[in-house]
Amino acid sequence: MKNLKYKTLIATTAVLASAFTMPSFAADRVYKLKLAETWSANFPIFGDAPRNMARIAEEMSGGRLKITIDSSNKHKAAFGIFDMVRSGQYDMGHSASYYWKGKVPNTLYFTTMPFGMITPEQYGWFYYGGGMSLMQDVYKPFGLLSFPGGNTGNQMGGWFQKEINSVEDLKGLKMRIPGFAGEVMAKLGAKPTNIASGELYTALERRTIDALEWVGPSLDLRMGFHKIAPYYYTGWHEPSTELQFLVNQRTWKKLPDDLREILRTAMKVSAYDMYIQSYHESGENWATMKTEYPNVEVKTFPKDVLNAMRKANQELLDEKAAADPLAKEILESQAAYLKKARVWTNISDRAYLDGLDDTAN
Amino acid sequence: MKNLKYKTLIATTAVLASAFTMPSFAADRVYKLKLAETWSANFPIFGDAPRNMARIAEEMSGGRLKITIDSSNKHKAAFGIFDMVRSGQYDMGHSASYYWKGKVPNTLYFTTMPFGMITPEQYGWFYYGGGMSLMQDVYKPFGLLSFPGGNTGNQMGGWFQKEINSVEDLKGLKMRIPGFAGEVMAKLGAKPTNIASGELYTALERRTIDALEWVGPSLDLRMGFHKIAPYYYTGWHEPSTELQFLVNQRTWKKLPDDLREILRTAMKVSAYDMYIQSYHESGENWATMKTEYPNVEVKTFPKDVLNAMRKANQELLDEKAAADPLAKEILESQAAYLKKARVWTNISDRAYLDGLDDTAN
Repeated sequence: MKNLKYKTLIATTAVLASAFTMPSFAADRVYKLKLAETWSANFPIFGDAPRNMARIAEEMSGGRLKITIDSSNKHKAAFGIFDMVRSGQYDMGHSASYYWKGKVPNTLYFTTMPFGMITPEQYGWFYYGGGMSLMQDVYKPFGLLSFPGGNTGNQMGGWFQKEINSVEDLKGLKMRIPGFAGEVMAKLGAKPTNIASGELYTALERRTIDALEWVGPSLDLRMGFHKIAPYYYTGWHEPSTELQFLVNQRTWKKLPDDLREILRTAMKVSAYDMYIQSYHESGENWATMKTEYPNVEVKTFPKDVLNAMRKANQELLDEKAAADPLAKEILESQAAYLKKARVWTNISDRAYLDGLDDTAN
Repeated sequence: MKNLKYKTLIATTAVLASAFTMPSFAADRVYKLKLAETWSANFPIFGDAPRNMARIAEEMSGGRLKITIDSSNKHKAAFGIFDMVRSGQYDMGHSASYYWKGKVPNTLYFTTMPFGMITPEQYGWFYYGGGMSLMQDVYKPFGLLSFPGGNTGNQMGGWFQKEINSVEDLKGLKMRIPGFAGEVMAKLGAKPTNIASGELYTALERRTIDALEWVGPSLDLRMGFHKIAPYYYTGWHEPSTELQFLVNQRTWKKLPDDLREILRTAMKVSAYDMYIQSYHESGENWATMKTEYPNVEVKTFPKDVLNAMRKANQELLDEKAAADPLAKEILESQAAYLKKARVWTNISDRAYLDGLDDTAN
């Protein structure tokens, strides 16, 4: 009898407790996600985006969503993020969509395009102009979701040892310029080469290459190129480089609604923040470069060079559109959006800036 | 004895239950906040920012943070938001900082300034250049916290019945242009007037006024000004109009850490989103205006007119800096930040856009 009462006590307690705590047990479950990033440990700006995302997600969820980040020092596969998230080895990735163009050609279009949209135009396309939906069309067959992951802003055209005064000057030019922009340069007679980042400084200093592009003042300062090359050309090839969060669809599906919204928002806000951080660091770092090396000159390619690049670029895009219906749909969507948005850019920020009597640098 | 056992059962149950459910009770408490907005019910873009904020906050919190929004149709005090949030009548507000300049002069500087920063520059100043901290210095004495609340982008200079070809043409010009920009115009001989928004169309059509500024294509389309004025001037006076979330400090303090982070993030992301939405709507709506009224002409004020406006603006700012140490600190912080950030703007987006052979509109 005593024993029975004790059992009743326990049973009743359990029932009462569970009546109160069932939602609590569900709510208190901790979801631990693993993210692999292309970047090395403590890489600034690019690496700040996933770090900020993880911190905000953990704080907003009261510790129920914990995202640990493995840098390339750990996973040793900087350009294997797509595969590792696809297989489920990692729940998430932070990288750039155009790194997968060799594997899935249509991933090319979601980072930035030569002569394409600037950053607010491109975010407009992603969030209000159909870009997000087209991006999911490309990634869905691989069990992946893709989200904007942070923007560098307009990237500089690169560091040059010699001035470029005509299309002729591009012929035979040895330049580190990877990806699609490299194809454009090759069409104009340049010799794009790829060189590991750790060897770039020496290659440029010893004239193994004539020129290179990296990012912009935000990340170029730490590379030191301003110490060894006199000309810093303004950009044409990456007007709005957007990084990428990848999420495995199985991970996404197992998250409860509130954590899914927390993750979505943490990715979105940390991407926007990276754009602003890049803008800030570019201004700060350019001031430092000019103070340390006042003779560095900012140059813009002559109009006929830019027009030749633009023509070569358009010919390459036309080939891609002709070869693949989804590529055609994406490129037409971007071109139509750019046309409308650029008119606004021209009568707003551009007209405002051009109306001011300020020197360029 | 039986009674004692029963009491023991209850007591033990309560202890056991509370051990499990205490965090659950805290976690399950619903915080209901009330927000008052300056805008009328269903006002687009401006009103979308607080609506999106409330929706995201509720979804991320699993329903634990519910924010109801009262428009000006309900509270009847479009420009009373500061007072109503200060008193605690509302927990939050959505409005614009410069509306409070008659009450607290230093609130003027956190919306936008004539000839000041463009949007990514200004977000850089807020989040990485000390702007947020200076804004709290202004609002803290009133028991308020202030956060960026969404950006319109660069506002247009307004709709004009006549072309402005010289500073002389501004003399006697009757223009609806409120606030600080109105003071600048007055210094140059114009007659700034304020007219209720519902009467603006008729006033411009009947030439009661010669010109007016509103926002830009994003919101001007619904006003119909393009049907009755031939010239649409590019902007100088509001290059980055940021709206504002206000939060009563007592409300902020009573929120648990996770909900505070959810609220902070929901405000931040919906502000960024409004910037992109405004950009998008501006492009779309300008295309509509040009299709409906192809003769509308975009004009930029001549350089000597802009330089005269800029000089008048600087003189007014110098007076404000001389009169108040905190105003001086804010204005110096903005000027120093603008100087560094603008060099970057000029060698990035501006150089890129100026290098393209595109027509302006």
